[in-house]
Amino acid sequence: MVIRLGANQYGKAEVRVVAVDRSAPRHEIVDLNVSTALRGDFAAAHTAGDNAHVLATDAQKNTVFAFARDGIGSPEAFALRLARHFAGSYPWITGARIAVESYPWERIAVGGAPHDHAFRRPGGEVRTAVVTVDGGRAHVLAGLGDLVVLKTTGSEFWGFPRDGYTTLAETRDRILATAVTARWRCTGTDLPWDNLFAGVRATLLETFAATHSLALQQTLYAMGEAVLERFPDVAEVRMSMPNKHHFLQDLSAFGLDNPDVVYHADDRPYGLIEAQVLRDDVPADEVAWQGTPGFC
Amino acid sequence: MVIRLGANQYGKAEVRVVAVDRSAPRHEIVDLNVSTALRGDFAAAHTAGDNAHVLATDAQKNTVFAFARDGIGSPEAFALRLARHFAGSYPWITGARIAVESYPWERIAVGGAPHDHAFRRPGGEVRTAVVTVDGGRAHVLAGLGDLVVLKTTGSEFWGFPRDGYTTLAETRDRILATAVTARWRCTGTDLPWDNLFAGVRATLLETFAATHSLALQQTLYAMGEAVLERFPDVAEVRMSMPNKHHFLQDLSAFGLDNPDVVYHADDRPYGLIEAQVLRDDVPADEVAWQGTPGFC
Amino acid sequence: MVIRLGANQYGKAEVRVVAVDRSAPRHEIVDLNVSTALRGDFAAAHTAGDNAHVLATDAQKNTVFAFARDGIGSPEAFALRLARHFAGSYPWITGARIAVESYPWERIAVGGAPHDHAFRRPGGEVRTAVVTVDGGRAHVLAGLGDLVVLKTTGSEFWGFPRDGYTTLAETRDRILATAVTARWRCTGTDLPWDNLFAGVRATLLETFAATHSLALQQTLYAMGEAVLERFPDVAEVRMSMPNKHHFLQDLSAFGLDNPDVVYHADDRPYGLIEAQVLRDDVPADEVAWQGTPGFC
Amino acid sequence: MVIRLGANQYGKAEVRVVAVDRSAPRHEIVDLNVSTALRGDFAAAHTAGDNAHVLATDAQKNTVFAFARDGIGSPEAFALRLARHFAGSYPWITGARIAVESYPWERIAVGGAPHDHAFRRPGGEVRTAVVTVDGGRAHVLAGLGDLVVLKTTGSEFWGFPRDGYTTLAETRDRILATAVTARWRCTGTDLPWDNLFAGVRATLLETFAATHSLALQQTLYAMGEAVLERFPDVAEVRMSMPNKHHFLQDLSAFGLDNPDVVYHADDRPYGLIEAQVLRDDVPADEVAWQGTPGFC
Repeated sequence: MVIRLGANQYGKAEVRVVAVDRSAPRHEIVDLNVSTALRGDFAAAHTAGDNAHVLATDAQKNTVFAFARDGIGSPEAFALRLARHFAGSYPWITGARIAVESYPWERIAVGGAPHDHAFRRPGGEVRTAVVTVDGGRAHVLAGLGDLVVLKTTGSEFWGFPRDGYTTLAETRDRILATAVTARWRCTGTDLPWDNLFAGVRATLLETFAATHSLALQQTLYAMGEAVLERFPDVAEVRMSMPNKHHFLQDLSAFGLDNPDVVYHADDRPYGLIEAQVLRDDVPADEVAWQGTPGFC
Repeated sequence: MVIRLGANQYGKAEVRVVAVDRSAPRHEIVDLNVSTALRGDFAAAHTAGDNAHVLATDAQKNTVFAFARDGIGSPEAFALRLARHFAGSYPWITGARIAVESYPWERIAVGGAPHDHAFRRPGGEVRTAVVTVDGGRAHVLAGLGDLVVLKTTGSEFWGFPRDGYTTLAETRDRILATAVTARWRCTGTDLPWDNLFAGVRATLLETFAATHSLALQQTLYAMGEAVLERFPDVAEVRMSMPNKHHFLQDLSAFGLDNPDVVYHADDRPYGLIEAQVLRDDVPADEVAWQGTPGFC
Repeated sequence: MVIRLGANQYGKAEVRVVAVDRSAPRHEIVDLNVSTALRGDFAAAHTAGDNAHVLATDAQKNTVFAFARDGIGSPEAFALRLARHFAGSYPWITGARIAVESYPWERIAVGGAPHDHAFRRPGGEVRTAVVTVDGGRAHVLAGLGDLVVLKTTGSEFWGFPRDGYTTLAETRDRILATAVTARWRCTGTDLPWDNLFAGVRATLLETFAATHSLALQQTLYAMGEAVLERFPDVAEVRMSMPNKHHFLQDLSAFGLDNPDVVYHADDRPYGLIEAQVLRDDVPADEVAWQGTPGFC
Repeated sequence: MVIRLGANQYGKAEVRVVAVDRSAPRHEIVDLNVSTALRGDFAAAHTAGDNAHVLATDAQKNTVFAFARDGIGSPEAFALRLARHFAGSYPWITGARIAVESYPWERIAVGGAPHDHAFRRPGGEVRTAVVTVDGGRAHVLAGLGDLVVLKTTGSEFWGFPRDGYTTLAETRDRILATAVTARWRCTGTDLPWDNLFAGVRATLLETFAATHSLALQQTLYAMGEAVLERFPDVAEVRMSMPNKHHFLQDLSAFGLDNPDVVYHADDRPYGLIEAQVLRDDVPADEVAWQGTPGFC
């Protein structure tokens, strides 16, 4: 029997770096949560406790802060800078994966005008970027998480098979609610990231709203398809969408009808729909997705 | 030695009721988390397991759903309806406390126009209402929680005493960030709740932005004072504001200066500032605050 | 109209201090989350941004770490040391409230023997202490939180009134589950804290188990009563106990009976029972409870 | 340009099923969180909203509850039953992935004896099982999550390379703390699951304690290696271990030394070490790991 080390990676997770651009009276703020992971030959650390190849995670954290000194720019661009730096820093470091969450800040309105240096952070939704550099090539996944959306009508669910455990009634009108996590693989590394993000996000939202839904699967696919149709730089979209159930409450015991008015929003269990939508004329790229959870 | 029951209350917590108004093509949605608590003579349940006085929490939940059938309206108005119902439902129920969290939904824009029945839920911030009915009188606390705000300049902290454990440097320019929880006690029970909420929220935000801060205490007080100055129906404001520290990162080891550009956003510990700002010409009303956590 | 500052306090929340006693080969570890709050005359900070009275929260944090250098001891004793220090540190600081969470660590067994310096942290349950010093007097609340317990039988619920919204069936046998938060006010400040804690905790658990329950209120009261009967140094117990519902699942659609076998554990809503159990021959002491959330 | 559906799956997540065995006076309880996911031909649902192939997630939930009626047994065995059922239920369903979290309950001691039907739930740590049935073959990952462990000595970190961003001092003695997530792939499907779990868990704990650590990587590898050495039915172990930093607090400003006594437990950032340890004589099996997050 021979026991050996398989795939491995290590790094610093959740470096909370905030950068302020005060070069003009109207300040800009970037607020990130950065996680680094290095890949390469770290066998001796595992098998012998020899750290000669182990760039300390503390040093990785320092690098994140130091690189922020020149300005961060978009999450994708910052992750690319970091990934390329780490992957080239020592001969035995053959790859790096940088995952970024970006938190938006909106200017507070004072007297109707956006303030120069006071901000409000809308919660919930985050913008994400995952950059993997491996063997000299960079792969970019842009994305977003926890985009919570709901339709009060325009959603049906019927025509499903009925096995011995199926009790669900068919419905021609239900509330459809979900929290979208989406990641889109980009074919370039020098794209207008902020514009691309805004465009994809708007497309996801518009398609969710405009699609008359016969299944959450259909809505998901329509959203991914719309992104691919409009954005030639996107090769593939992977989405994870919980079906956040809203159950019509039975009020008949109290002498009341309930014509799609009162619902109970349930926590658990929830449906979970996951799928990939992709372009046939672009080669697959599994390296880009390695270590990114939540996608079948 | 005599052991006895002291103050007590019970109810159903976190009823997640969602109501949709489909009476016009442009749907409206109200999304609440409602907690009920009854006060009165429940001694026999405690000391003898006699439930003759115990209106089941399941029935309280049913009541929340049934009352939503006629439309919910504002959180304050819905809580008032529920509290008055419960407090008058049986002779031994002398009071009720209804706490509501309200989650906002914004219409998704499609082709630039707000959609009729598709919504996005901005996360984080919540609107709150706490209504207590006791001895026939109703007390209303409106409020909000987790309003996260930040200023990139316009905040100083100096002139504090230096004991043997004080190592903090004085600063004339720092990031100031907090998550505002505020509750304001209203003197009426028939107020234009939605307008009042919007006005107080805007006042809190504007005052945070416009106040040059010498201490988070000063900012907090200015925010409360502004609310009291502008809204005569508000008797008192209580606020809890963590000081969410952003530490300037020392980059000198890497040959870099850091002129207020790169910060580390720290999680814990954090400062915590809590205070009441009130009107002298309105009597105190501790019943309104009973059971509302987080305020000194 | 005169607007003024009401009650206020400020401090450093969630200082995560870990102290190791390595004076013998068998190490000891204490793992705390400490929050400080000072009370007194801080009006000028609020109204004028004058910090001459504001002992920095950073200094409060430093004090926590410095005081840990001599050993922490029990949470209650450590909180007493800190509260007395702060309350006496400057003439304008008239009170202090120290809240502590203590996380247990158990020794890992190696070859059947507890290890000298390797530990496992059981999650969930925490031990708590809240010490308030005010006007020279110290008040101690010992306690625990999130003690999750369940009985598979020995719990009934019937005999409750049936209003127009009551649909709940009576039951002579149900699962009873809760997460106990309890705080007990102690009449002394120099008690054998660790022994007292262990004794009260065991009493709460034993009484929960041994009480045939006709209502969660009854169980709660029996638990508090047992503590007061056995521990003369405890003057009062306040408890908050959610009724974590386990609903018997209806399996009849699949041709199956369900004789109290299969349950669905629901998240929300949940019942919430809160009460105080106290000794009649000890004076009330509201100062001890000021700022401690979750108790009616 | 052709856009098409890629890999996809869907199911019901977080079914909270609790089963009680009351066949003897000494009750037994099993408390699970079950998530199902089906794989196969669901293309028409995505592209046309045709649900003829979509076994409703509600029916999947019902199946979980119905299958619990006969007793659950171990998490692995229950997941195997469910996965095989779903994968064979319709011709177009070619695979199923069942993920289970199991929460332990301990008997409450009353008068020194374990109670028959009263339990306490130790928090934190969970036992996990993931079963994938694909193409008629079943794959089992047993595991655990959030096993929090710490050593107060016996951990060094030195000999790492020093690039321009490395400022970390070398150390010959530090606190080592982590929260182990481990999953082990089993080569059989009819193993003594409870015994195997207990044995692997004890091995992980003992090896963590007994290994003098020169790097967290070394500790991780030793833990995985020990499991493979002792348990021939385990083919592979994958672990994810955050380095939960405890920083020695500098007390010199207060005239105090700090000989490894007082530490600050930091939240973020944290190191994150992930690796696979495997047996060379067993073929790889990526299907078993598909959709299991958190492992490189």
